Amino acid sequence: MAFPSDLDIARSAALKPIEDVANGMGLSSRSLQAYGDDVCKVRLEALDDLADRPRGKYVVVSAITPTPLGEGKTTTTVGLGQAFAHIGRKASIAIRQPSMGPTFGIKGGAAGGGYSQVVPMELLNLHLTGDSHAVTAAHNLLSATIDNHLFQGNDLDLDPHQITWRRVLDVNDRALRNVIVGLGSRADGVPRQTGFDITAASEVMAVLGLTTSLPDLRARLGRIVVGYTRGGDPVTAEQLQAAGSMAVIMREAIKPNLMQTLENTPVLVHAGPFGNIATGNSSVIADSIGLRCSEFHVTEAGFGADMGAERFFNIKCRTSGEAPDAAVVVATVRALKAHSGNYKIVAGKELSPELLAENPDDVALGAENLRKQIDNIRMHGIPAVVAINAFPTDHPSEHQVIQKIAAEMGAKSAVCTNFADGGRGATELAEAVAEACEEPSKFQLLYPDAATLREKIETVATRVYGADGVDYTSAAERQLDTYERAGFSNLPVCIAKTHLSISSDAALKGAPTGWRLPVREVRASAGAGFVYPLCGAMRTMPGLGSKPAAARIDLDENSEIVGLS
Amino acid sequence: MAFPSDLDIARSAALKPIEDVANGMGLSSRSLQAYGDDVCKVRLEALDDLADRPRGKYVVVSAITPTPLGEGKTTTTVGLGQAFAHIGRKASIAIRQPSMGPTFGIKGGAAGGGYSQVVPMELLNLHLTGDSHAVTAAHNLLSATIDNHLFQGNDLDLDPHQITWRRVLDVNDRALRNVIVGLGSRADGVPRQTGFDITAASEVMAVLGLTTSLPDLRARLGRIVVGYTRGGDPVTAEQLQAAGSMAVIMREAIKPNLMQTLENTPVLVHAGPFGNIATGNSSVIADSIGLRCSEFHVTEAGFGADMGAERFFNIKCRTSGEAPDAAVVVATVRALKAHSGNYKIVAGKELSPELLAENPDDVALGAENLRKQIDNIRMHGIPAVVAINAFPTDHPSEHQVIQKIAAEMGAKSAVCTNFADGGRGATELAEAVAEACEEPSKFQLLYPDAATLREKIETVATRVYGADGVDYTSAAERQLDTYERAGFSNLPVCIAKTHLSISSDAALKGAPTGWRLPVREVRASAGAGFVYPLCGAMRTMPGLGSKPAAARIDLDENSEIVGLS
Repeated sequence: MAFPSDLDIARSAALKPIEDVANGMGLSSRSLQAYGDDVCKVRLEALDDLADRPRGKYVVVSAITPTPLGEGKTTTTVGLGQAFAHIGRKASIAIRQPSMGPTFGIKGGAAGGGYSQVVPMELLNLHLTGDSHAVTAAHNLLSATIDNHLFQGNDLDLDPHQITWRRVLDVNDRALRNVIVGLGSRADGVPRQTGFDITAASEVMAVLGLTTSLPDLRARLGRIVVGYTRGGDPVTAEQLQAAGSMAVIMREAIKPNLMQTLENTPVLVHAGPFGNIATGNSSVIADSIGLRCSEFHVTEAGFGADMGAERFFNIKCRTSGEAPDAAVVVATVRALKAHSGNYKIVAGKELSPELLAENPDDVALGAENLRKQIDNIRMHGIPAVVAINAFPTDHPSEHQVIQKIAAEMGAKSAVCTNFADGGRGATELAEAVAEACEEPSKFQLLYPDAATLREKIETVATRVYGADGVDYTSAAERQLDTYERAGFSNLPVCIAKTHLSISSDAALKGAPTGWRLPVREVRASAGAGFVYPLCGAMRTMPGLGSKPAAARIDLDENSEIVGLS
Repeated sequence: MAFPSDLDIARSAALKPIEDVANGMGLSSRSLQAYGDDVCKVRLEALDDLADRPRGKYVVVSAITPTPLGEGKTTTTVGLGQAFAHIGRKASIAIRQPSMGPTFGIKGGAAGGGYSQVVPMELLNLHLTGDSHAVTAAHNLLSATIDNHLFQGNDLDLDPHQITWRRVLDVNDRALRNVIVGLGSRADGVPRQTGFDITAASEVMAVLGLTTSLPDLRARLGRIVVGYTRGGDPVTAEQLQAAGSMAVIMREAIKPNLMQTLENTPVLVHAGPFGNIATGNSSVIADSIGLRCSEFHVTEAGFGADMGAERFFNIKCRTSGEAPDAAVVVATVRALKAHSGNYKIVAGKELSPELLAENPDDVALGAENLRKQIDNIRMHGIPAVVAINAFPTDHPSEHQVIQKIAAEMGAKSAVCTNFADGGRGATELAEAVAEACEEPSKFQLLYPDAATLREKIETVATRVYGADGVDYTSAAERQLDTYERAGFSNLPVCIAKTHLSISSDAALKGAPTGWRLPVREVRASAGAGFVYPLCGAMRTMPGLGSKPAAARIDLDENSEIVGLS
């Protein structure tokens, strides 16, 4: 019998009333705001109600450098969360809200997979409670205010050639990447070139991920820099008098969404910032709630440990003040084989028979990547636990290689079959994580606030990425000078580079050495609270393919959704 | 003591739990889907549950030709709905969902006013349950699909110069009216000129207003024409394989939203199509539910009786098959004075002392407009009741003139003080409407489906607008020929003209005669199900002013919304 599809498994799930899920984690019904049948929002007042509760252990799920297929980090996050109940412990989970655009582009699978999924997946992958739509609306109100400011006389002397704030839409639409607006007659605005990003790339989304309260959200929105005057001074959303309205638009979106896994483990779904130009983590508020509602709060960080986990530590935890207790590093046989440099994996294509053949030697060859990512966790003072996300095509000898390397590194490890088996397939991992969390946390940030932006960039580049140093273009040098002058030097850095290598070159596998990080350009998310150097071209608006998922997704004769995966 | 502001009144309202409001109208709790605290969605299954219920009386609220200030049609709709309880009758109300963009542009006031409001007004004026956001997302997915089709090779031979489908956003943003997309490199799409409309102007919104079920919604979306081939054949959303995904995106939005008035009268809020290029009415589904949940279902139609009511009769009722029983025509002293031609009223400016002075003669001079609008109702076979929306600055002699004219026309009338007094200020109107509904309905459509498009346009122009005839540009002639050939001739027409005159010239007051309707262009909303001739330039994307409301709207120190009105 064939293994059932994710959608079939999700459809046959026995969901608990979401209020029961909330009550089970100690959230009173008055802390909840219902939204449809199977999701609710958690009111921010819950944070006060929970303030006296003991804090649970804070576990971040990261990974080795993934292949373009992804290595099942969400599946492991969900599986681990589910597993704690099997060993008699109470857990909660936090994940990002998936972007809706790609749902209609290529297969998403942002809900986890197999018997480790967040349900109902159609809610998660579509509007959920409208938070992303609120981000779109708040972002574009600011965009309209900017163009209106130019139209009404430009009192702030905003330089039309230095406007960095674009527009956003949650759709895969390459034709919107570069546009000219303001065409037509005099009454139709001032013509200028700009473009659209996908909503997940909005700084408003990054703000949502890092904010701690409504007044803090309001203040961060006010600090957003939309561009510069002809004299080079930053112009903010506050100066444009748009931040108040943006905060009003975001007033509901700031409340995290509560859903559940197939095994009724509570899942907070909140914010979905990009993983390259932003933090790639779910929200500070979601984690704050989860941490006070469970013994173990499991939160996911995007991409490999050099990316999402580094930002989790140095941006998210810096902002929240919450110290993590342990990190999981998800590894797969296929990705480690790819890191040997002997195989090529392409999204949308079948894996080659050679890659699937038993070959523990190639796993060992690729293990430098695993070692480096374990190091990247441990340099922040917390223990790493290796989760081997097992596939039916794996061989025991290959798992043994990974476990041996983990042991050599002093890290616990566990083979996880939670895709096929649900939570009981990850109990060994849960035990290992629980043990790791018993060690006293020595969490430390990688750099102090007071370091210069260049020092921060160089610290991450050399220590986390293994670069020999950093090279800046003259534009990047100028921008760094501008930001230091503008008072942004106390902000952490969020280095935008490929997620397919620990280096900035996607082709370099394993743990590359002997290279320098090229910083092409530096931008500031002054509202969200970080500066982001760009190392290479970051695509912030996807396109649709020649056979987009949209063409398959439909309502069937019973008006049920088909084709969504 | 000053009369309290709308916001103050709304804030001090004693709201009932929305489930109690629903139960009170006979909707079982399983028909409801909670969305936050004070609004819920009504599941479409309710339509089946209610099928055997006796149908209530169907009352549409229309008006004389308004001034740019509006004449309080929503306030009267809400007041009348509230009034029925005061005379021991059960009523429900249906209104459109306001567009969010203008909330941040100029003052909206789309919730009614004074003691006749829909609450909470901040929900109504902001996201509500996200239906408009769903319209935006569905619309723009089709837009992205079109540009992707051009990019991927244009198999359908879509003529880039004949693409009529634009993009939409729910924001006042004049800079988006005319844009060039697809700039950049080869990978960034095919450059072409297009533009954005506000979401309320989307055909998807018009579809939402007229659809009767999910399968019907799916079919209508498939029939949407996005442009034409080089050979002149229409290209549909179905051919582009986008309609299924659009229906999936709209799956929640099709359920009407239930709110309440200050006096706890149930209000169905659903769909917000434009009043010039579309129907300007709330949804068929909302009315179908309301009609089976009350003795009187009061629904509002946009602008004057020549606009919203004509579309209500000939498009909405044609689609739903529901025959109305009576129509209210809202009249004000100030608007009738303005129709005398002796005064000028400008939005955003104080009324002149001359206009406010007692002057029953000028009211009488402007009364031609009232007479014609009463006629416009009665030519559809149903009785008209005149609601005089009283202002503190009115004089009894002026009300008497209006009542005398109504009586001469054989129409009942009532002075309404529901702005200041709530439902009890409209009991006389409610009694008059109830009496009018006792007359057997002789409802008739103005033209049969089988008439040609030109016959339909000419019927509305001459009979409703009082034109001597219709003049078509050669472009309009060509378009009509195209649509007749494409099989759209069985559709009703929705004539897009100014709402500030019964004629197509906003400057002509009263009931203009001796003029001809100039049809500049004809477009088809084949999915929604109507053809719309354009008489003059219709602005489908508003701009922000020099002092937009956005600059005043904010969160106060308690994170409460301020500045929203």
